[in-house]
Amino acid sequence: MEIGLRAKGILFCLSGPSGVGKGTVIRALRQLDGNLDHSVSVTTRPPRPGERDGVEYYFRSRQDFEAMLAAGEILEHDEYCGHYYGTPLGPLQEKTAQGRDIILDITVPGSLVTLERFPEAVSIFLLPPSLSELRRRLEGRGTETAAVIQARLDVARKEILEAPRFTYNVVNHEVGRCAEQIRAIMEAERSRSERLTGIAELIMNR
Amino acid sequence: MEIGLRAKGILFCLSGPSGVGKGTVIRALRQLDGNLDHSVSVTTRPPRPGERDGVEYYFRSRQDFEAMLAAGEILEHDEYCGHYYGTPLGPLQEKTAQGRDIILDITVPGSLVTLERFPEAVSIFLLPPSLSELRRRLEGRGTETAAVIQARLDVARKEILEAPRFTYNVVNHEVGRCAEQIRAIMEAERSRSERLTGIAELIMNR
Repeated sequence: MEIGLRAKGILFCLSGPSGVGKGTVIRALRQLDGNLDHSVSVTTRPPRPGERDGVEYYFRSRQDFEAMLAAGEILEHDEYCGHYYGTPLGPLQEKTAQGRDIILDITVPGSLVTLERFPEAVSIFLLPPSLSELRRRLEGRGTETAAVIQARLDVARKEILEAPRFTYNVVNHEVGRCAEQIRAIMEAERSRSERLTGIAELIMNR
Repeated sequence: MEIGLRAKGILFCLSGPSGVGKGTVIRALRQLDGNLDHSVSVTTRPPRPGERDGVEYYFRSRQDFEAMLAAGEILEHDEYCGHYYGTPLGPLQEKTAQGRDIILDITVPGSLVTLERFPEAVSIFLLPPSLSELRRRLEGRGTETAAVIQARLDVARKEILEAPRFTYNVVNHEVGRCAEQIRAIMEAERSRSERLTGIAELIMNR
C-alpha cells in the first residue's frame, strides 16, 4: 500500500529456539509476499545433504569467516555447537536501500545485537506451542543426537524467557497459519505513519 | 492466536475526514473479525431515514446528552453542524474488560482526546486517495448541500495534516482491500509481546 512512499525497506528479525520452524515459516512467507527477501547467512558448518552454497547458507572456511569479521562485513555472529553463523551486512544494506523488505532468520542474541545497530528493525519471536512439541520437532529432524537435542532444549528454555524483549510474539502451531500472522505483522509495520512520511502532503496535492 | 492470554481487549480508534468511508470500512471489518465490536455513539442529531436507535447511534435529546456529559459517562464528544456526537464510556470499559476488541468511528480531535485517556489504544487514520476523490464521495452521498460539502472539505484539509500523529495511516482506495489492511493491523497489535504477558511461562509449563 503506497509502497512508493517508503524511503527504505524494513528489516524484520525472526528469532526463536532451534527447531521451532523459522526456516519453514520464512519459505512460506516469501511465497505469500513478493516484496520480501531473506538474508542468506554465512556459516562455517558443513552443508547438510541437499544444501547449496548461497541458497541455504554461504558455506565458508573458518579462516574466510574470520577475515569477513575483521573487515566489519558481518552484522552479528554467533558460535553454536562449534560453528560460526553470521549475517553479512552488505546485501542487507543494499536491499533495504532499494525499498525491499528483508527477513533475517537469526539467533536470539543475534537479534538483540541487530536491534542495537538498527533500532528501527522489527523483532519477532517465534514460540513453540509447548516444550514437548519443540522436543518432538527436534527429534523429527533425525539429524541430531539425543545429547545435541537435550542441549538445544536447555538453550531453548533460557531463550523462551527472552520473548518479551521482542516486539511481537507468534506461536508456531501450524506453518501456514503462522506465516499468515507474520504477514499481517509485516503489512501493519508497512502502514505505520513514521514509515509513510509525506503521505498527507501527497494526498493534498493530487 | 493465544487470545486467552490477553487480559484486556484492545481499543482501536479509526479516524479520518468526513466522507472517507469509516462506517463502510467498519462494517466490512466486523464481517471479517468475530472478536471485534464497534462502539455505538450518542448523538443529538435527528435520525436519517432508516437509522435505528441503538444501532447506528443512540439518539438522545440535548438535555439527556448534557446530563450524560455532566455524569462523566461520555469519553469524548464534539459538536458538529449544531449537533453533539459522543462516545459512551460504559460499554467500552465493559467489553474490553471481557477481552473483546472495540473499534471506534471517531472524529480526529476525539481520537486525540481518547489517546490521552487510553494511551494503550491504537490509532488509525483513514486517508482518501486524493482530495478530489473525497469530494466525489461526499457529493455521491446526496445528503448534503454544496455549502456543507465545501465546509467538510475545508475541515478535511486540516485534518489530513494530522495523519502523522496517528500510529497507522491507511489509504481507502477500495473498501475490501482497506478492511483487509486494517484487519492485518489488528492481528499485528494482538501479537505484540506487551499484550501477551505470561506467554513464555505458559509455554514452558505445558
